Amino acid sequence: MSASLRELARLVDGRLSGNGDIIITGAATIRTASPGDITLADDSKLASKIASCPASAVVVSFDFQPAGIPYIAVRDVHAAFARIVSHFRPPCTRQSIGISPAAHISPSAKIGANVDVYPGATVGPDVEIGPDSAIHAGAQIMAGCRLGQRVILFPNVVLYHNTVVGDRSIIHAGAVIGAYGFGYQTVNGRHQLSAQLGNVEIGADVEIGACTTIDRGTYGSTVIGEGTKIDNQVMIAHNCRIGRHNLICSQAGIAGSCTTGDYVVMAGQVGLRDHVDIGEQARIGAKAGVMHDIPAGGTYVGIPATPEREQMHKQAALSKLPEMRRQLKALQRTVDELLRSAESSPEHPVA
Amino acid sequence: MSASLRELARLVDGRLSGNGDIIITGAATIRTASPGDITLADDSKLASKIASCPASAVVVSFDFQPAGIPYIAVRDVHAAFARIVSHFRPPCTRQSIGISPAAHISPSAKIGANVDVYPGATVGPDVEIGPDSAIHAGAQIMAGCRLGQRVILFPNVVLYHNTVVGDRSIIHAGAVIGAYGFGYQTVNGRHQLSAQLGNVEIGADVEIGACTTIDRGTYGSTVIGEGTKIDNQVMIAHNCRIGRHNLICSQAGIAGSCTTGDYVVMAGQVGLRDHVDIGEQARIGAKAGVMHDIPAGGTYVGIPATPEREQMHKQAALSKLPEMRRQLKALQRTVDELLRSAESSPEHPVA
Amino acid sequence: MSASLRELARLVDGRLSGNGDIIITGAATIRTASPGDITLADDSKLASKIASCPASAVVVSFDFQPAGIPYIAVRDVHAAFARIVSHFRPPCTRQSIGISPAAHISPSAKIGANVDVYPGATVGPDVEIGPDSAIHAGAQIMAGCRLGQRVILFPNVVLYHNTVVGDRSIIHAGAVIGAYGFGYQTVNGRHQLSAQLGNVEIGADVEIGACTTIDRGTYGSTVIGEGTKIDNQVMIAHNCRIGRHNLICSQAGIAGSCTTGDYVVMAGQVGLRDHVDIGEQARIGAKAGVMHDIPAGGTYVGIPATPEREQMHKQAALSKLPEMRRQLKALQRTVDELLRSAESSPEHPVA
Repeated sequence: MSASLRELARLVDGRLSGNGDIIITGAATIRTASPGDITLADDSKLASKIASCPASAVVVSFDFQPAGIPYIAVRDVHAAFARIVSHFRPPCTRQSIGISPAAHISPSAKIGANVDVYPGATVGPDVEIGPDSAIHAGAQIMAGCRLGQRVILFPNVVLYHNTVVGDRSIIHAGAVIGAYGFGYQTVNGRHQLSAQLGNVEIGADVEIGACTTIDRGTYGSTVIGEGTKIDNQVMIAHNCRIGRHNLICSQAGIAGSCTTGDYVVMAGQVGLRDHVDIGEQARIGAKAGVMHDIPAGGTYVGIPATPEREQMHKQAALSKLPEMRRQLKALQRTVDELLRSAESSPEHPVA
Repeated sequence: MSASLRELARLVDGRLSGNGDIIITGAATIRTASPGDITLADDSKLASKIASCPASAVVVSFDFQPAGIPYIAVRDVHAAFARIVSHFRPPCTRQSIGISPAAHISPSAKIGANVDVYPGATVGPDVEIGPDSAIHAGAQIMAGCRLGQRVILFPNVVLYHNTVVGDRSIIHAGAVIGAYGFGYQTVNGRHQLSAQLGNVEIGADVEIGACTTIDRGTYGSTVIGEGTKIDNQVMIAHNCRIGRHNLICSQAGIAGSCTTGDYVVMAGQVGLRDHVDIGEQARIGAKAGVMHDIPAGGTYVGIPATPEREQMHKQAALSKLPEMRRQLKALQRTVDELLRSAESSPEHPVA
Repeated sequence: MSASLRELARLVDGRLSGNGDIIITGAATIRTASPGDITLADDSKLASKIASCPASAVVVSFDFQPAGIPYIAVRDVHAAFARIVSHFRPPCTRQSIGISPAAHISPSAKIGANVDVYPGATVGPDVEIGPDSAIHAGAQIMAGCRLGQRVILFPNVVLYHNTVVGDRSIIHAGAVIGAYGFGYQTVNGRHQLSAQLGNVEIGADVEIGACTTIDRGTYGSTVIGEGTKIDNQVMIAHNCRIGRHNLICSQAGIAGSCTTGDYVVMAGQVGLRDHVDIGEQARIGAKAGVMHDIPAGGTYVGIPATPEREQMHKQAALSKLPEMRRQLKALQRTVDELLRSAESSPEHPVA
């Protein structure tokens, strides 16, 4: 698999600088590269790290000329490096296995052309799966679900009944879509579960992370908009309507009936209380606790979440707090003395 | 499936107001209803939203008379609306499938009458399952577990050995009950796992959310009291004893050996340190970090958690902090000038 | 199974004090022990709890002589008590089942001697499993994974392709190892997934909790060091390099490309932003939000995380804040009066 640097430059259609005859034997990131490896630097700020990295060559963008190391300059560093890594470690190519005899398929399910269903997966009654989809081992699709084309369910995904998944969407292992919403009415001291008559509708080109949970709507649908990407261990509660092209990072939790506009970004461990509306392109910082609506384009951070600027002032003031306490005490002493002094002067008494 | 408004009013035993002859073709919430749909309004505050909703009719409670739209008044809006939704979209009725030949049942397991076990589920040695229970696809029940009657395990639930589940309890997909507690003793620089000799005991009428994890006790049981409802992605550590009828919202985390009284409510993303006792009917706000016991009936919020009132004062003071800083600086200047002025006056010297 | 206290003392090689003829019928912790039970007390601070506990005997360490109850003194209370519990409730011994005919094994997989593979587990192409390992029901091992010897995968664990697991490591139910990293480049308004060419490498003697997720590296490996223990519902993102013998508590979330040294401890619900480096033996308090590197040996808490001492000062100041506000107002009034008084005195005017 080893290749000359010149061959790699040709592979990625890049501009070679330095000795093209050296032999490259692997590809690795700066932190882990050894002699013989090619590495990548996607920012000229990495110049010093490249200088001390034992790699034999580096892929860079056109605006960065590293010194003392042969390099390949390209327009898209990551695309080129991915191609080089694939040369050294070819990715597993999907093997077309068709419908495994060890999968459990309901007779009433309709499965499109060129679909793979792996051992131990179940496809329930009245389920429809579009062409070119892959249902991995142990994925459980309950009755009435509808999946578009080129959908991938990784192992042990669970879709409760009537879940809809759009074309080309990917759901990672262990995610659970369509479980019951957490809504109760307390009658005579006992919590009674609300209706669970809705479902979950996932748009096209959505990606959902491992062990993420999205609950079904009470009467209607919980909706995930087209192109939205959701990380691992995110919780989206019943009746939420998430917009298009959102990015929702790991361990965020969104309570019932929230909505988001398009292109919203939530960092890790964010929490939203129920019935909150987030405007399009809003950004919410890590660990923020959102208690109220956020306007379009707003950047909110903190618990409770406030505009970033406000939060910075608060944090700055907070870090000055011990100093303020000292200052306040000193001032108090000074004023006390001024006061005593004023009182001792008969001409201008103070209350 | 379409029905006249009069027919729907009769279906839910409600009082019709307006034209009963109009034909209703579906049921949807205010946010998503179209012409032809019936919707619901469980609060008279929704009057303006109803006014601008294109729905053709609405279900309301007796104390709310919406204007300009036919309606059905009932005592329990949600119960009535659920019935109407079920008319338009009949829920999947459970199909009695019995014990699937594709399920893996230990010969020593005892399974009651009318139990469904779906393909790919495993029932280990010496397991007992009460009548009318359903074990969905891919659920794994390890040796020695005991399940009451009418228990539902959704797909891919895992019960470690000796787990006990009470009558009518529901465990959602991907939940893991009885994994090892996270307790280690560090000996010569290596972490040695503590004993894992206990189990998990879940009372009757408990509901446990998707991907929630409850760890087994060290020597005895981790206990979930009767009627308690637990949302998705909640973590309950080893040796905890959760009371009855608690409501524990998503992503809450309860460390080892905590206890709660009855009717405790925890909002989302709450964290409890280990060995904390929570009194009955206590309420803990979203994202709170509980470091100490909470008395019965207390409402605690914040990190670290304090009584709500105290937290409100803190937050109010915190939001005034930038202003306080300005005020303090201004005051300092004034006092400095007073001081200079006093010093310049020979009659009343100040230290 | 009942035994005399003398027999139990002999079983654990302990020093008997009190009547060795009494019959012990069970073992339970202080909170749950009944007459006839033996309990344990690992700290002399528990003296009062022992005094009011109905247990018939207690296991203690040599430096604690409880009054009014027979006891067995030993060097290691927990080891001795575990042995006694095992006498009363013998743990399930692992039954050697070999490779179940209901497991799905690729013909190209290489499986060592004395490995158990339970029903519904799948072992993909080119997978290698070392001797004495156990692959429980529903565990899914995708192509190219390599597992050492004595590895345990509990039910429904998912290993994505090319995952490496070291000797004696344990992965609990529902954990997902090697799912795609959450990295996107936004091109023309659409989020494009980054390369997923790496894998996850787990060292020897690692334990990974239920429903924990560890994402694969972009080009190289996400690494978990030898001896590290990870609790349930922890999230470790792509390209992280976790050191050896770390303890990472439940619901902690570590964003992409972070590193930790050896013996780092993270409490529950901690969050780390991406590209943060944590020095060896650092300790991070519950719910902390780490925005910057932490030096070796540091103890950091709070959001944003700061050294514990600094955070204590902040918290102390914060709790004084309402008082400070009152004090500031009072001071303002005094100064205002001083000012008025000074102004009314013609001799020393103040600006």
